[in-house]
Amino acid sequence: MNFGIDNITTIISEIIKKIAPSKTALVPVGVSNRHIHLSQKDLYYLFGEGYQLTKIKDLKQPNQFAAKETVTVVGPKGVLHNVRILGPARNQTQVEISRTDAFILGVNPPVRISGDTKNSAGAIIIGPKNTLILQEGVIISANHLHLSAEEAKDLNLTNGQKIIIRSITKERKLYFVDVVVRCGAEHSKEFHIDTDEANAALLDTNDNVEIVYI
Amino acid sequence: MNFGIDNITTIISEIIKKIAPSKTALVPVGVSNRHIHLSQKDLYYLFGEGYQLTKIKDLKQPNQFAAKETVTVVGPKGVLHNVRILGPARNQTQVEISRTDAFILGVNPPVRISGDTKNSAGAIIIGPKNTLILQEGVIISANHLHLSAEEAKDLNLTNGQKIIIRSITKERKLYFVDVVVRCGAEHSKEFHIDTDEANAALLDTNDNVEIVYI
Repeated sequence: MNFGIDNITTIISEIIKKIAPSKTALVPVGVSNRHIHLSQKDLYYLFGEGYQLTKIKDLKQPNQFAAKETVTVVGPKGVLHNVRILGPARNQTQVEISRTDAFILGVNPPVRISGDTKNSAGAIIIGPKNTLILQEGVIISANHLHLSAEEAKDLNLTNGQKIIIRSITKERKLYFVDVVVRCGAEHSKEFHIDTDEANAALLDTNDNVEIVYI
Repeated sequence: MNFGIDNITTIISEIIKKIAPSKTALVPVGVSNRHIHLSQKDLYYLFGEGYQLTKIKDLKQPNQFAAKETVTVVGPKGVLHNVRILGPARNQTQVEISRTDAFILGVNPPVRISGDTKNSAGAIIIGPKNTLILQEGVIISANHLHLSAEEAKDLNLTNGQKIIIRSITKERKLYFVDVVVRCGAEHSKEFHIDTDEANAALLDTNDNVEIVYI
């Protein structure tokens, strides 16, 4: 047989469509504003021995909540007031800020997945009872997709996998590359981004974005 | 001949590489902080009749400069101090802010290419001599690629074309889709993004990003 280049291109396109069908799945966005997770010890130190946080709102992630209480975060160049505490207490204190916030404070935190705070940035945390010098624990959160075990199975994704998520319905169209999948019992379907990423894509909480299967 | 599916995939990959070689070109980033362009009339109103701006820095775009002078921009919810004036004077006054800034001011500007300010947001502009009520002119700048006529020719791009630019060397990998090409004598190679977009991709001025040819 004698194929011309146009025919070959058409045939290849058809074959590719058959062996790699274009498939996408929608997931809701959750925009994280700056916040702090406190260890039990640091909570007691900042607010007083035996202090209990007051829940004002359940978060979408199971058992996580926003507390009424806030702290002040101070860096070499500036201050962030009313930084919301998210409960319950964690093993270690962690401050999650945007790069915009980092410039205000004058710190240079790494982009990290929650819990990975070794050699991250420091800050001073002011509570009503005490002031804590946090040597490390300040990070810029790496964007990630939360999924329950069942949702992960439905979407054919596994914990730790890196995927592409795209936002193409807003005026600022963006593809987020190397989004980490975090799945298990303590997770629920939500694409977590910070305020810088949300503003760069004009996204708000509960907007839908697409997982791109390649 | 008898092809297995693995062989077919390999053959197709090889053919695709031959007929559509992956081609990219590097361009430098320019991060735009909030700024204002003033009309001659509004400059005289805010600073006094016959006032001349004082250049402190040439910008990369031909004939554009940062002035020593700043103004205060006020919205329903907040204030932006020391907003830099970029010269020379333009036909109409235009304020370019990030979405982060828009939340501070409490305004809802559209994403627009420079000059397209019809039905955009308003604000109050305070100068040393007068206060101006700007009915429209506040925009969030749409990201765009400046190119001289010669650079556009070299890169095989035309004015108004929409392209994809990717940032994949930083920790936060992003593809910017529908980036508008602006080319001509008054332009010089630079990918303009605002501070939200820069922070979402961890980019700084003079970092390189890639044009993706598809």
